Amino acid sequence: MIVIMRADATKEEILKLKGKIEMEDCRVSVVQGEKHCILGLVGDTTKIDPSKIEANEFVERVTKVQQPYKLANKLFHPHDTVIKVNDKTIGGDKLAVIAGPCSVESEEQIVEIAKTVKESGAGFLRGGAFKPRTSPYSFQGLKQQGLELLKIARQETGLPIVTEIMSADVIDEFERDVDIIQVGARNMQNFELLKQLGKTTKPILLKRGLSATIEELIMSAEYIMSEGNENVILCERGIRTFETYTRNTLDLSAIPAIKRLSHLPVIVDPSHAAGMWWMVEPLSKAAVAVGADGLIIEVHNDPENAKCDGQQSIKPERFDSLMKDLVVIANIGKKSV
Amino acid sequence: MIVIMRADATKEEILKLKGKIEMEDCRVSVVQGEKHCILGLVGDTTKIDPSKIEANEFVERVTKVQQPYKLANKLFHPHDTVIKVNDKTIGGDKLAVIAGPCSVESEEQIVEIAKTVKESGAGFLRGGAFKPRTSPYSFQGLKQQGLELLKIARQETGLPIVTEIMSADVIDEFERDVDIIQVGARNMQNFELLKQLGKTTKPILLKRGLSATIEELIMSAEYIMSEGNENVILCERGIRTFETYTRNTLDLSAIPAIKRLSHLPVIVDPSHAAGMWWMVEPLSKAAVAVGADGLIIEVHNDPENAKCDGQQSIKPERFDSLMKDLVVIANIGKKSV
Amino acid sequence: MIVIMRADATKEEILKLKGKIEMEDCRVSVVQGEKHCILGLVGDTTKIDPSKIEANEFVERVTKVQQPYKLANKLFHPHDTVIKVNDKTIGGDKLAVIAGPCSVESEEQIVEIAKTVKESGAGFLRGGAFKPRTSPYSFQGLKQQGLELLKIARQETGLPIVTEIMSADVIDEFERDVDIIQVGARNMQNFELLKQLGKTTKPILLKRGLSATIEELIMSAEYIMSEGNENVILCERGIRTFETYTRNTLDLSAIPAIKRLSHLPVIVDPSHAAGMWWMVEPLSKAAVAVGADGLIIEVHNDPENAKCDGQQSIKPERFDSLMKDLVVIANIGKKSV
Amino acid sequence: MIVIMRADATKEEILKLKGKIEMEDCRVSVVQGEKHCILGLVGDTTKIDPSKIEANEFVERVTKVQQPYKLANKLFHPHDTVIKVNDKTIGGDKLAVIAGPCSVESEEQIVEIAKTVKESGAGFLRGGAFKPRTSPYSFQGLKQQGLELLKIARQETGLPIVTEIMSADVIDEFERDVDIIQVGARNMQNFELLKQLGKTTKPILLKRGLSATIEELIMSAEYIMSEGNENVILCERGIRTFETYTRNTLDLSAIPAIKRLSHLPVIVDPSHAAGMWWMVEPLSKAAVAVGADGLIIEVHNDPENAKCDGQQSIKPERFDSLMKDLVVIANIGKKSV
Repeated sequence: MIVIMRADATKEEILKLKGKIEMEDCRVSVVQGEKHCILGLVGDTTKIDPSKIEANEFVERVTKVQQPYKLANKLFHPHDTVIKVNDKTIGGDKLAVIAGPCSVESEEQIVEIAKTVKESGAGFLRGGAFKPRTSPYSFQGLKQQGLELLKIARQETGLPIVTEIMSADVIDEFERDVDIIQVGARNMQNFELLKQLGKTTKPILLKRGLSATIEELIMSAEYIMSEGNENVILCERGIRTFETYTRNTLDLSAIPAIKRLSHLPVIVDPSHAAGMWWMVEPLSKAAVAVGADGLIIEVHNDPENAKCDGQQSIKPERFDSLMKDLVVIANIGKKSV
Repeated sequence: MIVIMRADATKEEILKLKGKIEMEDCRVSVVQGEKHCILGLVGDTTKIDPSKIEANEFVERVTKVQQPYKLANKLFHPHDTVIKVNDKTIGGDKLAVIAGPCSVESEEQIVEIAKTVKESGAGFLRGGAFKPRTSPYSFQGLKQQGLELLKIARQETGLPIVTEIMSADVIDEFERDVDIIQVGARNMQNFELLKQLGKTTKPILLKRGLSATIEELIMSAEYIMSEGNENVILCERGIRTFETYTRNTLDLSAIPAIKRLSHLPVIVDPSHAAGMWWMVEPLSKAAVAVGADGLIIEVHNDPENAKCDGQQSIKPERFDSLMKDLVVIANIGKKSV
Repeated sequence: MIVIMRADATKEEILKLKGKIEMEDCRVSVVQGEKHCILGLVGDTTKIDPSKIEANEFVERVTKVQQPYKLANKLFHPHDTVIKVNDKTIGGDKLAVIAGPCSVESEEQIVEIAKTVKESGAGFLRGGAFKPRTSPYSFQGLKQQGLELLKIARQETGLPIVTEIMSADVIDEFERDVDIIQVGARNMQNFELLKQLGKTTKPILLKRGLSATIEELIMSAEYIMSEGNENVILCERGIRTFETYTRNTLDLSAIPAIKRLSHLPVIVDPSHAAGMWWMVEPLSKAAVAVGADGLIIEVHNDPENAKCDGQQSIKPERFDSLMKDLVVIANIGKKSV
Repeated sequence: MIVIMRADATKEEILKLKGKIEMEDCRVSVVQGEKHCILGLVGDTTKIDPSKIEANEFVERVTKVQQPYKLANKLFHPHDTVIKVNDKTIGGDKLAVIAGPCSVESEEQIVEIAKTVKESGAGFLRGGAFKPRTSPYSFQGLKQQGLELLKIARQETGLPIVTEIMSADVIDEFERDVDIIQVGARNMQNFELLKQLGKTTKPILLKRGLSATIEELIMSAEYIMSEGNENVILCERGIRTFETYTRNTLDLSAIPAIKRLSHLPVIVDPSHAAGMWWMVEPLSKAAVAVGADGLIIEVHNDPENAKCDGQQSIKPERFDSLMKDLVVIANIGKKSV
């Protein structure tokens, strides 16, 4: 940690602050610049709260040197994490493709889509049972019944199932029934939920919040990991910017950034990012080209009658032809589907 | 709702979509422009899901005419809501000032600050017991013990207490012990929590999410109200933008905007917005000048040793002189403290 | 154009506004909804100024139906534009790769880099002579001398040269000496410069402004085209968002969006987007995968001693291996280098 | 300047970089942390180009200690600048109010509005002659003729005139005829124009770009000042964010921030910020309450027929009543109109 003092800080104030910091078991190096004095904090700075230092009126600002996460930090765990999900894996040299409808609507629908996407090469089935909706008057999902239908689709196809959890009170059912538990963008900093998920044994698919920085996303993974569950898959799904043509702006730079900062696998959701079905194919290819470990794509056999997000779902035949292109691009990055 | 068809939509496709929409009990007016055909949907469009219409490949885009909220909508409830909290009110011609430390640290601390801010004219006491922190390794609040200390401070001063809830499992304690239950920015779209709070009888202070639009903030209030609890106080606390000098960008335009769209009271949190103690005073004055119904301000007797957010807390003496200026500005807007 | 009236607009006010609009040679269809009345404007709405209508206090808001650009609009020019530059082309089934240093530093430097990038397959040479710098104290480029050195490099390699113009007073030299004239992000809405460039005969490479929407970028192309020069190449180079890990956020969704809205070719600048050399390769691959018509990449033989932007330049050997991967990805999109 | 080395930087690489930096007349202090080594650069770091250092692959990142501006820096010029304009001043203990129409339309219009706003207490007259418009098909202003009309209005009222310059080729006329030369948001980083304006003797009103940081705004002032003209007035006019209800988000935190960083006066444009006439009054009051040195407000006697931006202009009677409130709020901050 580096503390930059104000130009008008007196020697006395600087020494007072130095002494205070050293009482927390840190060593402090003082570098006197032309105008500003700089304090370099050496040692275990994890106990130091930067906001306390910034509360000192002679402090200009505080800069962190080290990333605030440990368990998710590539610095301490240089090997990329590969997560086992039943007989499949996410991370490493495999491209994981998760496909399925926005929400589970009926047994017929989910089983049919599951069979189709499996045939095209998808490795996992997605489908919403509990749906976070901006409006309380919108369809909120089939809930427990949706989970049951996902289980049927899994039985029929063998595909592991991925679905979103919205509150901690159903965590036992999710741990028992679901193969990958998804945390949505809106709950990325629902810290109580993250802590509870940290106590489960199932892989967690953690989506980046609409305005979360890369560091905050990794910190939310750290919340889960710090409770014992180290199987976290990160997911870039578009961030909120001033551009309104697309629903969100897919931040593909986040993929190489996360790969440099963390050992956790990271996948991309092109469907929610753009919010328009005709963008899903080009963005999926770009995501694989940039180095993502996988994709989560909305596929629906009848988008115009889908109960939610039909505008961003692609039809099975487009998904099928997309998969063929993805295989070629994945190969360039030494990945296979 | 207005549907703008693509320029290449055939007459047949337009009629097909028109027919489909009319099956949902809506009347459709067709306006044929030079290039684009427009469908105006008349009647109760609440059952219409725009994303289904947008899934039609001949649709360019869908534009809403009416705001998607009802209970919070000024159009249907033209009179401003005034919320009763014990013997005090929020909204109308009163300026509500909520003050206190970021987090409750000890009985001595919270009682002393409570007495001081009351003397300066604050009407409510704030203090965090459950603290949402970006890092799992940061101080997470005194939790239940913090609630107990807040109750002591209330007993000593008579000030109603405001504190943040982070998960639904403590909702009974909050409903029993707390006067105004706060929902933090990170939980603004924790819809399960909102629904549970909608079943309580206590006023809810709902903070705007870091990247929430004004409409989304009001929709989150609608979630609470749709479950029966109409006592919602909105709070602008800064949004995330590209500017990094301040922690967030306080969006004071949101105040007149919300006042035009909704009848709910709206207050401002200048402490979290800027993240710097020396900005709290000017931003507080601006918030009152722009027409806010109140303020929630962090005041700490010893910011450099505060357990959290010391850098954005002001000292009691500054709070005291600030209150004097606020009274004058409030008067211009026909409000009294 | 669609005008949504306020719920409290009287019939009289609506008719008054209708009459006023019809005086501008537009037909107005009135659709009366439950609460709001909607006016659909049919005919040539280009003369209508929406801000005048919005100044009416009974108007809620005005929504455009048609894009405000014509010459750049795919609706009126369905075939993609292919731009000839000497013996090369940009757009269509070719992937154009523009490479070279941030700034021209010496004859030796620019000629050497030009030869190397040509050998690796680049089709065009970039190099800054006039440099827009945030600080007046930074290196501002070799200016006219830089142009001369670029011409030497062109003579040595046959590569057409691309360089940035910063003010209209050097437009004659640029038209005479340069093959593609670049307008930087900061000047995207320097309308006087755009108009002057519209009178030249050279292709213009127009970079998206840091916070320009896709529509504004195309409108700036329209400025150039409306003066007679229809050879405009658009360039996505990252937008400004809240994320600070990367310098800007590369918005790859803009590529399919622009391809849908306009017939102009669009390329990507991965170097300025991320601002970090190790991101250039993955982002370049993603840009080609998403469907860009080309790339503009900073390549420097000695980045640590580059006079500007060394941190985002890649070395010739990395550029060479990158080109091999790009050929494969381009093929998927039916493009050749 | 502080250089944070990567954790995997060897001692040798660190010493090599240290040696290279010291060759530029800087002293380097090495602070060895647990994982990362930190280099503190002491001395005149203005010649050091951080991007060269960041090009070193063993460098994690570079952090500036001192602001990159000098002439505009409060650190070196602690007294607030007061700018003389004819017999009036901007900055210090005066609140400067600039009012007038978006664009000059006719002699009658500009003279009438000038007289009205003067009567209400405005000290300066604004009016656009050269208009930057997003569309090449929109009204572009009366240009030279507009300047002539402004001069007539000045003669009739004595109010100094403020109008926008869009290109350097009319700089002589502006220097001769205009009292304060305005640089619009879109040209904030038109560095060639800034340099030319730096050679004039007239005060420059520099508007913040839509996505410019506070530091970049001050750096653009530095461009003007470094050429000799130190009379720069900064202007906050709203920044681009994700919120679409308002046209831009007025960043009032920028006022106290700029006052801390620079000695230059700073004013607020509430009209362009919100883009809606009914927000101008509350935002004006907030701007004065937060400590701005002045306001620039669009006033039009007939907004519905204004040639541009009628939707954000207020009528003279509203301006008059607003001025009365502003006087009271200005007094709290020890300013008089």
